[in-house]
Amino acid sequence: MSIRGDRKIICVDMDEVMADALAEHLLRYNQEFNENVTVKDLAGQWIWQYVPEERAAALERYMQSDDFFAVLGVMPDAQRVLERLQSQYDVFIATAAMEVPKSFNAKFEWLKQHFPFIPPSNIVFCGDKGILQGDYLIDDNPRQLRRFQGEGILFTSPANLNVEGFRRVNNWLDVEKMFLD
Amino acid sequence: MSIRGDRKIICVDMDEVMADALAEHLLRYNQEFNENVTVKDLAGQWIWQYVPEERAAALERYMQSDDFFAVLGVMPDAQRVLERLQSQYDVFIATAAMEVPKSFNAKFEWLKQHFPFIPPSNIVFCGDKGILQGDYLIDDNPRQLRRFQGEGILFTSPANLNVEGFRRVNNWLDVEKMFLD
Repeated sequence: MSIRGDRKIICVDMDEVMADALAEHLLRYNQEFNENVTVKDLAGQWIWQYVPEERAAALERYMQSDDFFAVLGVMPDAQRVLERLQSQYDVFIATAAMEVPKSFNAKFEWLKQHFPFIPPSNIVFCGDKGILQGDYLIDDNPRQLRRFQGEGILFTSPANLNVEGFRRVNNWLDVEKMFLD
Repeated sequence: MSIRGDRKIICVDMDEVMADALAEHLLRYNQEFNENVTVKDLAGQWIWQYVPEERAAALERYMQSDDFFAVLGVMPDAQRVLERLQSQYDVFIATAAMEVPKSFNAKFEWLKQHFPFIPPSNIVFCGDKGILQGDYLIDDNPRQLRRFQGEGILFTSPANLNVEGFRRVNNWLDVEKMFLD
């Protein structure tokens, strides 16, 4: 399956896998509505399912704001493990930026800042990860994993706690164990 | 190979296949340097190979300018034939925007304006088309066609006139004949 030589291809999702978008959502939401929602409250739901319907537009507004993607935190151990993965696999970052077109550049800059060792040629913006050829896709979204042609690996997020049918990793240390140990 | 059902997947490059970037390059170049370079002068060369070395930076500057991608003309028959292709194939637009990150949004808007029937989910920004799974890639760049895992179809541009080893289409009427007749 490798593009060059016999290395396997691992595709990696960005939001909730490399970048902690949910924390930023909660921060802005709690500030605006004077709430104290935590990730525990979201178990089994996406945040836009959890919040009252009349506040869903606020979440959309956060994502469309110019600085949302620039300030996202990096998931623990993601940098170290991804750099190790790169030494044995062809690693591609695959992010579905199409719903927030303004985010293209911010996401690209974020990757350059926090993952400078990933070459731009290995970054893919696509709305439908079924178009990727690869051996593995690590993603928190079961819909994308189902469309992917290789093996989907579910990266735990509050929303997918009850999802079954995929091998699951809870964090980047689990990814390290699965692919490198 | 299809993502849903048994339709084949056709990936289509954007610059020089859907969008006439070369015409805009020549227009700006001829204006700035008071020249009269035509596509015929470029036979067998990319424009950055043709121009004197000290002017290569100008080409780079055109592409980096905010309005370059927004004003590009549409290749003859591209709209009609792509819309027909969509009725029988899964069509994905695959463009290597990574060298000009500022172009993401402009390219996305250009596609929305001129090809509104292509859903955002079927647009892919990627620097390396080897990551795409698909049956065909229509592209003017032999380097991308070689990396692609399906069949590469060479879309004629001045630079690739002497390239061999691929089935070739000279224009969108040829694409229509190859895939729809």
